[in-house]
Amino acid sequence: MAGNTIGQIFRVTTFGESHGVALGAIIDGCPPGLALTEADMQHDLDRRRPGTSKYTTQRREPDAVKILSGVFEGQTTGTSIGLMIENTDQRSKDYSKIKDVFRPGHADYTYHHKYGIRDYRGGGRSSARETAMRVAAGAVAKKYLAQVHGIQVRAYLAQMGEVTIDTVDWAQVEQNPFFCPDVNKLEELDALIRQLKKDGDSIGAKLTVVAENLPVGLGEPVFDRLDADIAHALMGINAVKGVEIGDGFDVVNQRGSEHRDEIHPDGFASNHAGGILGGIASGQPLVAHLALKPTSSITVPGKSIDVHGESADVVTRGRHDPCVGIRAVPIAEAMVAIVLMDHLLRHRGQMGA
Amino acid sequence: MAGNTIGQIFRVTTFGESHGVALGAIIDGCPPGLALTEADMQHDLDRRRPGTSKYTTQRREPDAVKILSGVFEGQTTGTSIGLMIENTDQRSKDYSKIKDVFRPGHADYTYHHKYGIRDYRGGGRSSARETAMRVAAGAVAKKYLAQVHGIQVRAYLAQMGEVTIDTVDWAQVEQNPFFCPDVNKLEELDALIRQLKKDGDSIGAKLTVVAENLPVGLGEPVFDRLDADIAHALMGINAVKGVEIGDGFDVVNQRGSEHRDEIHPDGFASNHAGGILGGIASGQPLVAHLALKPTSSITVPGKSIDVHGESADVVTRGRHDPCVGIRAVPIAEAMVAIVLMDHLLRHRGQMGA
Amino acid sequence: MAGNTIGQIFRVTTFGESHGVALGAIIDGCPPGLALTEADMQHDLDRRRPGTSKYTTQRREPDAVKILSGVFEGQTTGTSIGLMIENTDQRSKDYSKIKDVFRPGHADYTYHHKYGIRDYRGGGRSSARETAMRVAAGAVAKKYLAQVHGIQVRAYLAQMGEVTIDTVDWAQVEQNPFFCPDVNKLEELDALIRQLKKDGDSIGAKLTVVAENLPVGLGEPVFDRLDADIAHALMGINAVKGVEIGDGFDVVNQRGSEHRDEIHPDGFASNHAGGILGGIASGQPLVAHLALKPTSSITVPGKSIDVHGESADVVTRGRHDPCVGIRAVPIAEAMVAIVLMDHLLRHRGQMGA
Amino acid sequence: MAGNTIGQIFRVTTFGESHGVALGAIIDGCPPGLALTEADMQHDLDRRRPGTSKYTTQRREPDAVKILSGVFEGQTTGTSIGLMIENTDQRSKDYSKIKDVFRPGHADYTYHHKYGIRDYRGGGRSSARETAMRVAAGAVAKKYLAQVHGIQVRAYLAQMGEVTIDTVDWAQVEQNPFFCPDVNKLEELDALIRQLKKDGDSIGAKLTVVAENLPVGLGEPVFDRLDADIAHALMGINAVKGVEIGDGFDVVNQRGSEHRDEIHPDGFASNHAGGILGGIASGQPLVAHLALKPTSSITVPGKSIDVHGESADVVTRGRHDPCVGIRAVPIAEAMVAIVLMDHLLRHRGQMGA
Repeated sequence: MAGNTIGQIFRVTTFGESHGVALGAIIDGCPPGLALTEADMQHDLDRRRPGTSKYTTQRREPDAVKILSGVFEGQTTGTSIGLMIENTDQRSKDYSKIKDVFRPGHADYTYHHKYGIRDYRGGGRSSARETAMRVAAGAVAKKYLAQVHGIQVRAYLAQMGEVTIDTVDWAQVEQNPFFCPDVNKLEELDALIRQLKKDGDSIGAKLTVVAENLPVGLGEPVFDRLDADIAHALMGINAVKGVEIGDGFDVVNQRGSEHRDEIHPDGFASNHAGGILGGIASGQPLVAHLALKPTSSITVPGKSIDVHGESADVVTRGRHDPCVGIRAVPIAEAMVAIVLMDHLLRHRGQMGA
Repeated sequence: MAGNTIGQIFRVTTFGESHGVALGAIIDGCPPGLALTEADMQHDLDRRRPGTSKYTTQRREPDAVKILSGVFEGQTTGTSIGLMIENTDQRSKDYSKIKDVFRPGHADYTYHHKYGIRDYRGGGRSSARETAMRVAAGAVAKKYLAQVHGIQVRAYLAQMGEVTIDTVDWAQVEQNPFFCPDVNKLEELDALIRQLKKDGDSIGAKLTVVAENLPVGLGEPVFDRLDADIAHALMGINAVKGVEIGDGFDVVNQRGSEHRDEIHPDGFASNHAGGILGGIASGQPLVAHLALKPTSSITVPGKSIDVHGESADVVTRGRHDPCVGIRAVPIAEAMVAIVLMDHLLRHRGQMGA
Repeated sequence: MAGNTIGQIFRVTTFGESHGVALGAIIDGCPPGLALTEADMQHDLDRRRPGTSKYTTQRREPDAVKILSGVFEGQTTGTSIGLMIENTDQRSKDYSKIKDVFRPGHADYTYHHKYGIRDYRGGGRSSARETAMRVAAGAVAKKYLAQVHGIQVRAYLAQMGEVTIDTVDWAQVEQNPFFCPDVNKLEELDALIRQLKKDGDSIGAKLTVVAENLPVGLGEPVFDRLDADIAHALMGINAVKGVEIGDGFDVVNQRGSEHRDEIHPDGFASNHAGGILGGIASGQPLVAHLALKPTSSITVPGKSIDVHGESADVVTRGRHDPCVGIRAVPIAEAMVAIVLMDHLLRHRGQMGA
Repeated sequence: MAGNTIGQIFRVTTFGESHGVALGAIIDGCPPGLALTEADMQHDLDRRRPGTSKYTTQRREPDAVKILSGVFEGQTTGTSIGLMIENTDQRSKDYSKIKDVFRPGHADYTYHHKYGIRDYRGGGRSSARETAMRVAAGAVAKKYLAQVHGIQVRAYLAQMGEVTIDTVDWAQVEQNPFFCPDVNKLEELDALIRQLKKDGDSIGAKLTVVAENLPVGLGEPVFDRLDADIAHALMGINAVKGVEIGDGFDVVNQRGSEHRDEIHPDGFASNHAGGILGGIASGQPLVAHLALKPTSSITVPGKSIDVHGESADVVTRGRHDPCVGIRAVPIAEAMVAIVLMDHLLRHRGQMGA
């Protein structure tokens, strides 16, 4: 049972390989009456798009999304929304050499053994290029959440390698190619990326997603808690190895008297919980963190084997990001927006409000 | 749309409140021909059961599970399996005082606002007591995984407060009430719990789950990756605030050349990935970590409000664990087993093998 | 992937064999705040119950349903509702003779070949006894639909063998053991049943379900149309071989100018469509018909084979209905009510109204 | 919760309006290794295609389907398959007059009231044009069923108006534009269509679908029985008002001794059941019938109202089929094939065989 759909009521199903004809998605369950044009999605697609800065891969795709259905005279109609991005810049020869080799740290090995066949061009379905459709669908969710409920979903780079941030200035995030909220760390980030390029190596990253103005009540215990579904959505992004809500792993060494968020008549006194209690949104800002591993597409040679089990040295050439975490900022926002949108409709379905 | 079901093909649906008549579950999709008796579930239920050691809550429930259907002459028949545990020790008066007050850090506040009504006795559905049925269902999955595929799912306490472990000796885990794999830390753990009881406070914990002997191929990209579904299942356990796969948040400061697991003709050279590549099991041991917050049911008074918005001081009396993380060991195993079982059947459905 | 769940948002999952310990169900997604007691379900259970008249099987089960969770102080809480009926009158020896024989027209043959193992006592899971839980769950749906939306779901016997009805007098339906709306046909029905008992034979039946006061808009094209989901629910009742909406198979010989329901400013001029257009409720009464085959549990000997493929003559003794269609009236109502309830919540989820 | 997906493991999700940019589908869960090209789908698309004979609508669409993903070097890869058909012949002005009027018997009225907005051009999403993607997806299922399991799914026209068939000669079905298996009825059918065109009217039809060589065991009681899912799939086709399995409504007047299919050591003696017992395939040919209403798109004027509730006379001009049942033959095959494919994988998932 394949798993290319996310969401129960606001349901997003995607298709597409890195070097196939096109990427696409169907959004099913979007409420009617939402003003929607391609431009609403293009902004986030451009934020995710490769080739937009010297810090990311130089593959150049316009990533122009087309609405194929579900929108009439500028408004959603409640029917399924078809989306498509045609692939244009597919330099397949970059990859032909490694067709029979499993790049260490890649999904080559597991796709080969699971399916017995794989589109090896650019990683096929396992390529991060697949996430473009998540961003497009997430943009629809973000627009609905913002317009109808005033909910805002944003993310930033919280750490890259040893470079941590000291302050969160949201105004800064969109002003630099790192989505970094601390202007004082831009030079360090720039230096780190330069060094990695020189070394032909890569680095991990930590992102933080914040959703504000959530209504109390989103989340469906006991299994489809809001935090559980956010964990599912974020862990399902390529390269993610960890997800935290609120204080996350710091809770291991906290005491109950310190961790619990006291409540005053005018609101919560703190937000260690990250906006979720018992799996249900408390109305406080939802705070989630995610850790992305360093990409394995590096030019430092690595030991591996080929499909026949023979030893092989692998160097991944082609166009790759030294830190895939950077471009994951709009992807993380999109995934959280899709989950929130779905839970908004799920809650509404059961509760009628 | 309520969320009391987990799994797609091996589907577990649960019901039950802490102080209701009974807890129950329906397992749908269990293959026929599996030898199954109540005893198969009782072992794990006893491991999770309150009142078994001085380190956990003193509520005494026999937690005797009954099979109501789906098993005939000692074997599963392929039809839905009904399970029930009757509640016997329901001291409701312990809780009557806090009926109109939101205990800080609890789900009281969010259940009240989501549903407009809640069974306040013992936390109702939000009580950790609900997890008994997860453990029962997980035991069925564990048995099938072990018998049919030789897959073993185990967990241990990796950290409590500042007490970390130095070695993992699986033989130790079931020998002490902490599920601690390091015999040298038992005294420290004992001292910490004593101190917490004296202080009327609680502490967080970190657990590690390991699944061995997995076949390559489990996991359904791009959304229902194995890691994504494990994150969903583990984050959906009461009190969990963080989930990691393999190196988890340590990847943020790793380089690609360091993180990627090289492959030799005789196997992988390391397991930074925690057994999952591209969302699909690689055949290496699956390693997941989870962080559990300190329970908010403590006797240290806390500021809160009542249902009328008035200020209130809250002391949670009753019988509670100073560290809910301890008893979460069998729960975490159960959730991972349910996910693996489901993915085994999902993979089999699409692939025919 | 087993199929013991129906509904997407109002979800009913059942378990239980004819001669097992108990039958049970979990209702997930019932909105909170609905007043609910066992008595609300018992009425319909009694209507379906065997042994209540001389026209149906003489197995005597009190069919006393118990609410195990999800209701607090007389109201649903929005959490999952656990229901159970204990089996008491299980005369297993009636069936022991046919343990290795496939009764012709029964599910024995297919269960045996599908699962490789089956609970042969009383038909196990394939017994119509399973439908008791559908009726219990349907009663919850019926109560919500009636109280919150004024929707009424009722059914009647439209035909048994050659006995057709001439008029529909709803007041009559609950006044006779046949659920027959035409008082002038009671004698013929009585005579037919007597004859069948004498012959040791059985007969088919046709039922009609009508749901009134539906809001316009229920139904989710293009696949989960309201009519499609009603067809699924009704065809899924034991013994059903046909389902019609509105004019049903009569449309084959109708002209478009005759079939289409014209609309006047004060409403529709006719209801050939049976209340559904394009898969969506039009607000007119929803009318569905279903055909139930004659039960195969008869004493007329029949040719069959045993599990070894050897020829065998089969006589089904035990306690059986000459016309299973009669008792299917409350079952059909329940299934339609469950579908309507689910679609009400589905519509509400997407549309917010 | 929108309903544009069918299937649980072999899942088909569609989008597209009659006069939108394109129609499309995503097939998720198709096993890898199936040889697949556009030509495999084009054959059935051409059978369904308008404008191919004088008996169907004269709208001319090449209906050229394009595979966008999921196929590599001529074989499916196990990843999601994206399909698209661009709309080319969209004469929107035909429909502009009826933009504010509800055509009697159409979905105009219900779409308007459900969504508050609708793409009125050519019926938008409610147009039968939507079924093109079902046929494309069904062709993939048909190919897999045939190649891997030798299962054949075929359908024919069983009745149109008063014209019934006397014999079923499969060789005839593809030799005439009516999909009629009885060569002696072609003249009558031709005459009937001519008359209808002259009258500006339409007529209903009955189709029969037969699936041969099914393995015993497909079907998932108690709700997702094979017959229940087939009823769902067939009732979900535009214009369908009735579905029967095997003897269908004829069972109402059958006796048990007559209806039940006796079993001999060499097989079943009859097939009243239509190949399904207890909701599970018996291995006999699966036989289903469906009734399609006469299309409401006729030039005979009809009374209706406009969106303001005012009285209006409606004449539907444009290009329409006098009998939509004819072109529904490949659609019905496709729906049954999709259900069988899904159940094959569902069965395999739970049973492992």
